Amino acid sequence: MLMNATDLASLQQQLAGANPRTILKAALSAFDKIAISFSGAEDVVLIDMACRIRENIEVFTLDTGRLHPETYRLLEDVRKRYPIRLRVMFPDPAGIEAMVQAKGLFSFYEEGHQECCRLRKVDPLKRALLGLDAWITGQRRDQSADTRQDLPEVQLDPAFATPQRPLIKFNPLAGWDSRKVWDHIEAYDVPYNELHRRGYPSIGCEPCTRSVLPNQHAREGRWWWEAGQKKECGLHVTHSKT
Amino acid sequence: MLMNATDLASLQQQLAGANPRTILKAALSAFDKIAISFSGAEDVVLIDMACRIRENIEVFTLDTGRLHPETYRLLEDVRKRYPIRLRVMFPDPAGIEAMVQAKGLFSFYEEGHQECCRLRKVDPLKRALLGLDAWITGQRRDQSADTRQDLPEVQLDPAFATPQRPLIKFNPLAGWDSRKVWDHIEAYDVPYNELHRRGYPSIGCEPCTRSVLPNQHAREGRWWWEAGQKKECGLHVTHSKT
Amino acid sequence: MLMNATDLASLQQQLAGANPRTILKAALSAFDKIAISFSGAEDVVLIDMACRIRENIEVFTLDTGRLHPETYRLLEDVRKRYPIRLRVMFPDPAGIEAMVQAKGLFSFYEEGHQECCRLRKVDPLKRALLGLDAWITGQRRDQSADTRQDLPEVQLDPAFATPQRPLIKFNPLAGWDSRKVWDHIEAYDVPYNELHRRGYPSIGCEPCTRSVLPNQHAREGRWWWEAGQKKECGLHVTHSKT
Amino acid sequence: MLMNATDLASLQQQLAGANPRTILKAALSAFDKIAISFSGAEDVVLIDMACRIRENIEVFTLDTGRLHPETYRLLEDVRKRYPIRLRVMFPDPAGIEAMVQAKGLFSFYEEGHQECCRLRKVDPLKRALLGLDAWITGQRRDQSADTRQDLPEVQLDPAFATPQRPLIKFNPLAGWDSRKVWDHIEAYDVPYNELHRRGYPSIGCEPCTRSVLPNQHAREGRWWWEAGQKKECGLHVTHSKT
Repeated sequence: MLMNATDLASLQQQLAGANPRTILKAALSAFDKIAISFSGAEDVVLIDMACRIRENIEVFTLDTGRLHPETYRLLEDVRKRYPIRLRVMFPDPAGIEAMVQAKGLFSFYEEGHQECCRLRKVDPLKRALLGLDAWITGQRRDQSADTRQDLPEVQLDPAFATPQRPLIKFNPLAGWDSRKVWDHIEAYDVPYNELHRRGYPSIGCEPCTRSVLPNQHAREGRWWWEAGQKKECGLHVTHSKT
Repeated sequence: MLMNATDLASLQQQLAGANPRTILKAALSAFDKIAISFSGAEDVVLIDMACRIRENIEVFTLDTGRLHPETYRLLEDVRKRYPIRLRVMFPDPAGIEAMVQAKGLFSFYEEGHQECCRLRKVDPLKRALLGLDAWITGQRRDQSADTRQDLPEVQLDPAFATPQRPLIKFNPLAGWDSRKVWDHIEAYDVPYNELHRRGYPSIGCEPCTRSVLPNQHAREGRWWWEAGQKKECGLHVTHSKT
Repeated sequence: MLMNATDLASLQQQLAGANPRTILKAALSAFDKIAISFSGAEDVVLIDMACRIRENIEVFTLDTGRLHPETYRLLEDVRKRYPIRLRVMFPDPAGIEAMVQAKGLFSFYEEGHQECCRLRKVDPLKRALLGLDAWITGQRRDQSADTRQDLPEVQLDPAFATPQRPLIKFNPLAGWDSRKVWDHIEAYDVPYNELHRRGYPSIGCEPCTRSVLPNQHAREGRWWWEAGQKKECGLHVTHSKT
Repeated sequence: MLMNATDLASLQQQLAGANPRTILKAALSAFDKIAISFSGAEDVVLIDMACRIRENIEVFTLDTGRLHPETYRLLEDVRKRYPIRLRVMFPDPAGIEAMVQAKGLFSFYEEGHQECCRLRKVDPLKRALLGLDAWITGQRRDQSADTRQDLPEVQLDPAFATPQRPLIKFNPLAGWDSRKVWDHIEAYDVPYNELHRRGYPSIGCEPCTRSVLPNQHAREGRWWWEAGQKKECGLHVTHSKT
């Protein structure tokens, strides 16, 4: 099912400020070809919530080939616990091998993370999105003052929608803060990434994630050698036209 | 120098809501026989602030014999970096040996931490306080809703003062929250306990401290097997007479 | 250059019991299309020795997508330190994604490691071997009583040679034991995998490697849930014809 | 019971080359006032063997106040599993506090470990030995080429015996090597220090112990900043008279 601009505007108005369950229900009833994107971190709450709505939810995750061992273990725990269909997307070797041969295994520290994220995350994401009319992410406004503060509950995907393919993106956790997410994880005994107990509020690839000090913002644990405004991997960034 | 009730009330009024530096200055000018109690955690900011006021501050810390290796390393870093006189108090073997022979090395998990804290912390603290007219602690109101919410900037020590010995306790960080403490640590490049980067907001003895999840209260990392209201080791608790 | 059976037999006789440098020299002078296979573990000594013979050695390693973070760091250290051309082979996503979707991310614990090793190691190895006439491995007789005790210094590759393509395999460390390898690493200040200092004598993929107790055989740290005789990943096993 | 020189010579001859159980049996039947000295490492096998001979063995261990958390956990595991009477000796605060105030918490790195070992190990050991006629240690000849190669199965204690008090020391593991110790631990499912699985063959105080590389001698993990011949803490060294 595709959604036109009028329907989207109406849905946006209807879901503005709604709680995550309401947004998830709306998403799952509006679209058949829809999937949850799972990062292996605290967005596990989305899966827990969705499985209380219906079974056989489609979920995909991006195995970049550089995840923490703890993240692989969480992916498997989730796969075994919930009645979901989990696709684990894997990068294409041609691009990875060429980049590594030319620049080594840690080029992101010198050149920025964009090329590596494109090969290990964005390209596999594009494959995962093929055939979908909508997807569901765990993004929240409180995750980044720079890039996520205006995040709507539902939107035309600013990165991957095209005139021919009006991909819709749902962000059910947009209005939640970290405390609400963790309250849910504790209350419903949701499995979580062990790294969260070792000072990691935000989790991505192993070389590009670190633990933070008390009171440091979660985003300080990601791509810390780069300036704040770049801290998105390309999955959720608006394509600027300039 | 001893302080009578009228002077204390006046000082309390004067320091209510004052910033940590002001409180520290007042403390250090009012008393010669005064020392900072350093726990090996984020109260390191007190030492940093005090050394900007004057040199040769007396500092003591309680080596319980069960601290984390990381804490011993911080104690040494602090000893080498700041012009302080650091006393490291150590427990008496008679009590420790008797308790361990009777109950083993982890009796606190079964019986509560009071006996162990008394032998490893409170008794050595009493020795450290001998000869002092006042001491300075890193307690803050934000550390515990149960036990520290009414903490004043300066007080007659509710645990160790006696009619014959009106010991005064200063709490310069009473009004600061964790964020301000960490802003100071970062701004002044103050050495900190490595455990703070591994999910430990609060640090005590190794077996009685654990890392916490994102958004868990710091105090969840201490004596987690006991109910909330008991989470003080006896250094700072009022002696109730009932 | 291809090598016929007579020349091989002569070379075998000549190199039987020779030291690693002699074997490496013979290998590098006999073949132009030759490469060292580097596992990210103590076989780093081969690279160190080869670079003392000539520059621009071809080296390849198999990035299975499940290596330890420490192994990626060693690969990069080696890439930066030695004048080698390092190819890092990466698996094909089609096979990985299908296996993971069907069986999850840890199927090797239940079904054995053969399928996963084939997809993540053997298939990429075959690509790495394309165009080569010979390769050089770090295998040693002391690594396995079951599978490596008769390992010759040079051999027709028992797994990947074909009648049309008589691939030669050199094992310069065949006659060395672990002590000699580590003496070389220390004497020449060769970079090594940090895991070797944490109880890991043998290092492979993260989920299929563990540390061992004092005096346990290195091979106890690999695929420990399987019987001893299967502990090869397919890179070095003879194809049985029965 | 005291033992004269003739009896000791006879016992030495009788026990030369005997297996650990035989030596233990001889020790336990010859002396009532006898205890096993347990270091919290692989000498746990002595306790396992002794408890198969009789119950209520006296065991003591030296809690230096700087042990690894893992060692405290093993001490407690052993205390709970075996029918022993465990004394955990603790150092005297006067000496520790004076040393630390003068030289800090890591003076052994600069001045050598003798003073610290004396205060934290040797003095408490002397207290533990008071009233004993004999003690049993886990020393082995294979632990040190420098200091333990001539270790007898039983001896007049070269450090603590006096003319008035002919203290006897039994070393039941003198003739065993590390492999035999670990075979016993595995065969009898004896609890062991978790550090042994992380590259630590020898375990003492935390700041003075480190993990070793494959094939490094166990003793390389102790007081590594000092020359080989000094690597004893004073518990087992002959008092030289020169």
